[in-house]
Amino acid sequence: MQYSIGIDLGGTDIKAGLLSSDGKLMYRTVVSTHVNEGAKAIAKRIAQTILQVHSQTQSLKDIIGIGVGSPGLILADSGIIHFSPNFPGWSDIPLLDYVAAELGNLKIPLYIDNDVNVMVLGELHHGAGIGYENVVGLTLGTGVGGGIVINRKVYHGSWNTAGELGHTIVQPNGPKCGCGNRGCLEAYAGARHIVQRTRQKLASGQNSCLNPDVLTPKQIAEAAEAGDKLAQEIFAETGKYIGVALTSIAHILNPEIAIIGGGIAGAGEKLLFQHIRNEFRKRTMGIPSQMEIVPAKLGNDAGLIGAAMLAYNIH
Amino acid sequence: MQYSIGIDLGGTDIKAGLLSSDGKLMYRTVVSTHVNEGAKAIAKRIAQTILQVHSQTQSLKDIIGIGVGSPGLILADSGIIHFSPNFPGWSDIPLLDYVAAELGNLKIPLYIDNDVNVMVLGELHHGAGIGYENVVGLTLGTGVGGGIVINRKVYHGSWNTAGELGHTIVQPNGPKCGCGNRGCLEAYAGARHIVQRTRQKLASGQNSCLNPDVLTPKQIAEAAEAGDKLAQEIFAETGKYIGVALTSIAHILNPEIAIIGGGIAGAGEKLLFQHIRNEFRKRTMGIPSQMEIVPAKLGNDAGLIGAAMLAYNIH
Repeated sequence: MQYSIGIDLGGTDIKAGLLSSDGKLMYRTVVSTHVNEGAKAIAKRIAQTILQVHSQTQSLKDIIGIGVGSPGLILADSGIIHFSPNFPGWSDIPLLDYVAAELGNLKIPLYIDNDVNVMVLGELHHGAGIGYENVVGLTLGTGVGGGIVINRKVYHGSWNTAGELGHTIVQPNGPKCGCGNRGCLEAYAGARHIVQRTRQKLASGQNSCLNPDVLTPKQIAEAAEAGDKLAQEIFAETGKYIGVALTSIAHILNPEIAIIGGGIAGAGEKLLFQHIRNEFRKRTMGIPSQMEIVPAKLGNDAGLIGAAMLAYNIH
Repeated sequence: MQYSIGIDLGGTDIKAGLLSSDGKLMYRTVVSTHVNEGAKAIAKRIAQTILQVHSQTQSLKDIIGIGVGSPGLILADSGIIHFSPNFPGWSDIPLLDYVAAELGNLKIPLYIDNDVNVMVLGELHHGAGIGYENVVGLTLGTGVGGGIVINRKVYHGSWNTAGELGHTIVQPNGPKCGCGNRGCLEAYAGARHIVQRTRQKLASGQNSCLNPDVLTPKQIAEAAEAGDKLAQEIFAETGKYIGVALTSIAHILNPEIAIIGGGIAGAGEKLLFQHIRNEFRKRTMGIPSQMEIVPAKLGNDAGLIGAAMLAYNIH
């Protein structure tokens, strides 16, 4: 059995885990961090966490690599965080070099990639994507993240920005998106935009049990489950726009499967996935329409497992 | 110097050419054909044409391969035409086997791919795409074709339908497209749809020198050149929708360059390309927005040159 270490780097904590080559998370830990610490301090914390995980395995030589998943634009080949919304001010931080320096004599190959790419990689190897070659992944959270796997490798594009599936245009005159464009998928399916659209519908006088002052996607999903028509409509629309984006994506990339994760995907089959599939099947041509659309399986572990899988997925 | 033979298979004729490895078309010929002849008869004609081209080169051993570009859904790995709008009734035709049988003792590797994939390959190696790794190509004609090159190879997707860039959705409630969907790029930028939109504008009473009874994209382009406002508006809109599609494509694939060919691309910089670029730059995020957007260079030779390049581009 071989092992690898996965690190899920966030703005408030660092998760770490030890993954066996058959996909079991043998050990996991979380340490708090703070963006104000600066990159070198965070790299030191990552190194300490690695050493802690490392101490859990008896035979050091069996750890074949360490992978880090990080939000932002990651230059995977050179181990650099070019930019990350979660670490304001970071610009071209050679994070892997910093971590390697802190690891001292512990010489294990280090890898890094974008957190959504890593999620798709995790699902590919140990989740909903097992056995597939070409896979796209969406994460529905505050933003809508995306990742592309081609021939079982993460596809980075020419300048490491491939897979921004949340910025597929679904309505050219739609709402303003955080990226500056109008009508991106994220402008319909990102948490903030779901809440905003719900508020607009409430303000227009539609009947609903929802309170516009305290609104989260989770509350909207619960109201929809309880039969609230307005809330159901919001999820149906969200699903419809995801279906529109997946049509473009399937026509462009012709993947076998789209895996959808993130908090909002938790709304599930009836509220969300059936609407995604209906819209997709209605719009997509014969052969590419055979793409499967499924929920992610690994949940909160996808980041850890995927990061650890970077060790097996040499670019 | 090495040579390869390219075949550009169409519904009414077969073009063939001899390409040198430095990208020169040394010889070319055209023979007429007719879809009613059936696949085996057409394969025989292709073989005869190959033998004719072959007789033009002195040293047979220098011909490293023969490539065929064909419209339709091509199973490149197995040499099969799964389906082609230009050859009604053809279903899973093993064209390369038929051609090989007709070539008898002449044993040269045969390759086949979709005509737009082949066009992008030609541009990559000897046209507007020289030096690039990840390239997308659009052909603006009756339909809007697309092709994707990743790491200098044609990308086929899971079921050989990748690169249907003309079926990127640019307006979810837009006009009906030939594929059954609404608001595909093709429903705005395909020749028939350009003409249809022009007729609608004329019918609504907009002032123009155009005659609704005899309308082609070429006439619309000439009128636009001559200052006709309605005709200029049609091309500006067409450019705008191409820009919308390229935004989605750049966010998904992050290629370095988009190469646009086909008859309608002949409208050129002022009528078309500036509008494509303006819309694209306005909508696309920082790094992927650096994608170049350029006209194809090889014109009518792209099909021949690209097909011949299949010999160098083993899947």
